[in-house]
Order: sequence, then C-alpha cells, then structure tokens
Amino acid sequence: MATRISKTPQSPTQKADKKRIEVLKAAGKCFRKTGFHQTSMQQICAETGLGPGAVYRYFTGKEAIIEAMVEEERRQARAMLLQMRDAASIQQALSTATRLFAERYRAGSDASLMTEVYAEGMRSKRVGTVLRKIEAEWIMGLSNLLRIAQARGQIDASLDAAQTALFLTGMWDGMVIRQHFHAHDDPQALPIFFETMIARLLAKDNKVAGKPLTTPPLENSLFAEELKKRAESEDLRQLSLI
Amino acid sequence: MATRISKTPQSPTQKADKKRIEVLKAAGKCFRKTGFHQTSMQQICAETGLGPGAVYRYFTGKEAIIEAMVEEERRQARAMLLQMRDAASIQQALSTATRLFAERYRAGSDASLMTEVYAEGMRSKRVGTVLRKIEAEWIMGLSNLLRIAQARGQIDASLDAAQTALFLTGMWDGMVIRQHFHAHDDPQALPIFFETMIARLLAKDNKVAGKPLTTPPLENSLFAEELKKRAESEDLRQLSLI
Repeated sequence: MATRISKTPQSPTQKADKKRIEVLKAAGKCFRKTGFHQTSMQQICAETGLGPGAVYRYFTGKEAIIEAMVEEERRQARAMLLQMRDAASIQQALSTATRLFAERYRAGSDASLMTEVYAEGMRSKRVGTVLRKIEAEWIMGLSNLLRIAQARGQIDASLDAAQTALFLTGMWDGMVIRQHFHAHDDPQALPIFFETMIARLLAKDNKVAGKPLTTPPLENSLFAEELKKRAESEDLRQLSLI
Repeated sequence: MATRISKTPQSPTQKADKKRIEVLKAAGKCFRKTGFHQTSMQQICAETGLGPGAVYRYFTGKEAIIEAMVEEERRQARAMLLQMRDAASIQQALSTATRLFAERYRAGSDASLMTEVYAEGMRSKRVGTVLRKIEAEWIMGLSNLLRIAQARGQIDASLDAAQTALFLTGMWDGMVIRQHFHAHDDPQALPIFFETMIARLLAKDNKVAGKPLTTPPLENSLFAEELKKRAESEDLRQLSLI
C-alpha cells in the first residue's frame, strides 16, 4: 500500500487554533495602539483580515479576548516558574526575572496594556475572576520556590514565603510603572537597583525580623492623625487619584 | 456709616473655583463608577446638574479633567511630604504612608481609576507630561527626606536616595494593585508586611550593599538565555499581557 505524505495535513482543530491565535494577535496589536476601551471589535476584524463572522466564532467580544490573553499569560507564567526552579540559585532566578520584566514592558504600549488590564480586572467581575485565578497560581508557585530556597539556607527562613511572593510581584508591577514616568540616562539603572533591593530583602543576615511580631495599630502621633484625617476626607478622596 | 456683614460675599473667582471643583468631583464619581474611557462628557454634565456650557467653560474635555485631577494630586503630595518631614522618624513616616496608601485605595473603583490614569499617562502625551511633572516633584521630595534621614544616621547611608525613593513609590503602586487580586482574611496583613520589608530595606546593619558595584550583564546561564528567548519571541509578546 502506497502512502503519500507530501505535507502534514492540519486537522480542523489545528486550523481553528491557528485562526484563534491570529485573532488574539490582531487584538493585542489594536489594544497596544489605541487602548482596550477605544478599540472596537470592527477594528479587530479589520486587523485580522477575517470577516466579523470568523472573529465572533472564537470570541463573543472584547472581554472574552482579554480573558483568552490572560489564560495565555497563565501558561507562560507556569513555564517561567519551571525555568526559575531550575536556576542555580533563587537569587539568580529573581535577578533574571527582574530584568526580563523590565525589558518586556519597556515599550509604553505594552506597559499601558498591562495596567489597563489590571484596571479592568478591578472593575469587571469576569476579567477579575480570571486574573485572580492566574495570580493565585503564580503566587503559589513563587512561594514554593522561596520555601525551597529557605530550606536550602539560601534566604532568610524567617520570611513568610507567600507574603514575600506578593511583595516581589507588587514590586515588579511598580517597577514596570515607574520606568515610564522617570527619565533615566541608563534604562538598566532602575531594574539593577530593584535587583539589589531584592538581595537586601531576602538576605539571611538581615537583623530586621522578616515577620512583624504583632499587628501594631497605626501610630497615634499627630502626624499619623493628620494624614489619616486627610485620607478620610471625602472631598480629597473624590478629587485625588494617586 | 453702617456696615452689613450678614454673610461673607463670594468673589466671582471664588464662585468659579467652587463650580470647577464641583465638576471635578462629579467627574471623579463617574470615572470611579464606569471607568475613564466609558464615561462621556454628557454623563459628567448630568452628574454635576450643570449645563454642558458650564462644564465646558472649565474643561475642554476629559483629558483636561484628568489633568486637573493630577494637579490637585500634586498639591496633596506636597502637603504629605511636609507632614512626613515633621514625623518623629523616617521609619514612622514611611510606615504611616504605607498604611494610608493601602486604606486610600482599598476600594476597587479607586485603585482602578489610579491604574487607568497610569495607563493613560503612558499612552497620551498630554496626560503623560503632567504625570511626569508631579512624579518628578514627589521623588525629589521623598529623596530629600531620605537624605536627611541618612545624614541623621537613621537609615543606611550607602543607599542611593533617588533610586530608593523610586523603589518605595513603585512598591506602593504594587501594593495597591496586589491587594485587589489576592484574598486576605486580614486586610491589614499586606500593608504591615510591606512596612516590615521597608524596615529591612533601609536598615543600617544590612550586609548587602545599597549600591551595585558595577552594572553586571544579564547572567549568561542557560536559564537566563531561555527566558530571554521567550521574552524576545514576537509571538509571545503579542499575546502576553502581564
């Protein structure tokens, strides 16, 4: 019996997956250019070159597209955690991760899309649910890496691993935002400083305990009271942003 | 000559200022509810109860409103820095600031608006310019506080004050974002952990130097290469968000 294998044929599922990814890419391009809310489904259809019917076959709307992007992000985060686990030390893994986050979001459009998705996740229940799921998985994975490093004596064992993972992740978010609002002669300076700060935080010989012994109340000083009053003032809250 | 002072009369300027603030408040309310981009000028007019003519007399559009909100924020940041300067110690000032930021942005709508404004500032030149100005002023003020604390021997003198100010500000951004994507039995736990981390960072007895001695290249390990390859892959970049 003769066989003809001139080209591996694509199954209908593979073809559909490919088209789905094309739509996601086109949407990402539009979102980066004009922002999530100012992009219409029509613009995404135009960018893909597919008819609206084809686009709507895969996604019911922009929220569904954002959801799929976050799901894709989850796969990547999982792969990154596996790579970090195989690094020579946790210090090296975190240092590399810091620079990669800085590089990945150096373009304003990428960082802007990231912050827009966070904003959307705080407002939209649907996007929020997906984001919280991926975040929980990421924090659990990073906490486990930190626990292994603690067991190996690489970092301070007194640190709460889950809280430290949250702190590191928050710090990376902040770094990505900061690098867009401050001029730097050397774009490497900020991530390198963040790396140094991580090393200080995790150092075993740090004399400041990793865990607060109690939950102290907000200081009762005149200063704290004044600031608290300001923060509680409805007038200020309504006007202020940052 | 008889004088009649039943009520302090408002000058035309005071009246205008009051109306301007009313518009800003109404806009803030709308932005918190539905987001910056999904709010129309018509909705803001409806919320103020003033006619469109009155609203447009003060602001040419939504960008001008955001600009005014950021300007108001600048005034508040300046006041906060003055208060921090008068605190008993830099540790107390930073600890109080950490909790106040956490409280102020505990509501999802407030944190969402904050992140939306950041996203807008990365995309819109006009909003970006105003944000960068207020950020520069804030970082300069915070750096000065840190330098005074260094001179007084309260914190590690080897730390670069400006970079540390950037780090702290980024860390606060990250904390505000994180507290919305992770469930906590105790909402105080995260800000308290962040406070502890700040104490570790600034501690004088930290054996890890505050400044990197050189600017080392990204590690040349297999791990770093693999991650770099992933980050550079156009396909992944187009799909990924976070």
